[in-house]
Amino acid sequence: MAFDFPQKVLFKHCDPAGIVFYPRYFEMINDCVEAFFSDVIGVPFEVLLRDGGVPTAEIAVKFRAPSRHGDRLILSLEPVTLTPKSFALKITATCAGEVRFVSDSTLVYVGSDGRAAPWPDAILTPLIQFSEDTP
Amino acid sequence: MAFDFPQKVLFKHCDPAGIVFYPRYFEMINDCVEAFFSDVIGVPFEVLLRDGGVPTAEIAVKFRAPSRHGDRLILSLEPVTLTPKSFALKITATCAGEVRFVSDSTLVYVGSDGRAAPWPDAILTPLIQFSEDTP
Amino acid sequence: MAFDFPQKVLFKHCDPAGIVFYPRYFEMINDCVEAFFSDVIGVPFEVLLRDGGVPTAEIAVKFRAPSRHGDRLILSLEPVTLTPKSFALKITATCAGEVRFVSDSTLVYVGSDGRAAPWPDAILTPLIQFSEDTP
Amino acid sequence: MAFDFPQKVLFKHCDPAGIVFYPRYFEMINDCVEAFFSDVIGVPFEVLLRDGGVPTAEIAVKFRAPSRHGDRLILSLEPVTLTPKSFALKITATCAGEVRFVSDSTLVYVGSDGRAAPWPDAILTPLIQFSEDTP
Repeated sequence: MAFDFPQKVLFKHCDPAGIVFYPRYFEMINDCVEAFFSDVIGVPFEVLLRDGGVPTAEIAVKFRAPSRHGDRLILSLEPVTLTPKSFALKITATCAGEVRFVSDSTLVYVGSDGRAAPWPDAILTPLIQFSEDTP
Repeated sequence: MAFDFPQKVLFKHCDPAGIVFYPRYFEMINDCVEAFFSDVIGVPFEVLLRDGGVPTAEIAVKFRAPSRHGDRLILSLEPVTLTPKSFALKITATCAGEVRFVSDSTLVYVGSDGRAAPWPDAILTPLIQFSEDTP
Repeated sequence: MAFDFPQKVLFKHCDPAGIVFYPRYFEMINDCVEAFFSDVIGVPFEVLLRDGGVPTAEIAVKFRAPSRHGDRLILSLEPVTLTPKSFALKITATCAGEVRFVSDSTLVYVGSDGRAAPWPDAILTPLIQFSEDTP
Repeated sequence: MAFDFPQKVLFKHCDPAGIVFYPRYFEMINDCVEAFFSDVIGVPFEVLLRDGGVPTAEIAVKFRAPSRHGDRLILSLEPVTLTPKSFALKITATCAGEVRFVSDSTLVYVGSDGRAAPWPDAILTPLIQFSEDTP
């Protein structure tokens, strides 16, 4: 089952054209991933970051339709590929069923020295569970 | 010749790990494109946006190495594909020659009604010139 | 009764020292005021802004103690002074009872022409009610 | 002599009303202070922050007139009060001579343990010089 993250479009997200300024979508995407680690993985970023990090190695986003102030978006996070050192995920943002953007990104794990490392078990186990539960 | 946009990494760009928080890169990318329209195309966004807009239809970024507070980046913008209704561009960000990220994005033109439209001549002509000058 | 707005300190709010970068507090303050208009006044910004606006005329903030990633803040909004054309309010942000910052700001109303104007009744009436209910 | 920091109002600063969203002013203010430490004090934040920090203890801003996309602002930083442990400064932002906002803020010094401490000589000496040169 996908992880759903609700996000109302607020004044701060919008540009002079009255639609979301696209760099703000990347803050929403990051907030969604942060909530996913807290709520689904059970390792909140504020704990995870004491010993390591989960930088985004790459991200590609297609913007399908503009979002306006007050729109109630749902960012829906699904697993794509899990490897010992990476996790590819897709986030589809919709408003009342209309797709607004689709994001494909890959997270990697880095240890406290900032170097790539395998997922610790405390993260890997729930990532496997989530991947199995969300086919 | 590519359009070079210098950007020092400032305090506001950096996260608790001391490196650039990646959504801030998208603000830098937008600033680079805004400066390109002002300096190369000769139609600053504050003029262009009176009658239309140039939304980003899609963007894909690969983060190659982290950037730290104080790093002096150069965002180098090159043309990829120009069509009557779109402009694909690549931005390569380097610091002292080391690549930090590579961004591929596509801009489209929308008229004052928010609908896709062909590039106005005032934008198309310098885009053609830039594309020819930057093989 | 004060209007309470919960805000977890997220990764995006924090600086290289691991504490909230203070401009991010102003986004939280704005989000709190936006939620107050939506939830208490009954006129969400996305509706209000069709015909006018509520710019902040001045704001003064004292930062009492730093906030760290993961802290669960409560921004508590109280009325200070209501006039026909302005609304002064105080926001006290606390974490587990410790004050993190105190903000004093004044909102004014502007009409669709961007000029100062009296509060419309649809806003004034609930502002009076809130002021009376929160002595 | 005041320290002048030029800042063009960019697309990213502006809200649906087409004017600067006020939390973005605080990023400009921080950028101005960061440039001041780099250019005038001779201790860039990326160096200063290795051993300490200069948090803003309080800030009060009056917004006098809105700023629009494309406006070329000058943020002019002047000293107000220098003490062994604090530095109060005023920033006046103008566009073509019209005042847009006036900010009064107080910086303090904290050591690597995050506790308030006297200014190190490397910072105090140029702060004294700046204060004497800008009566």
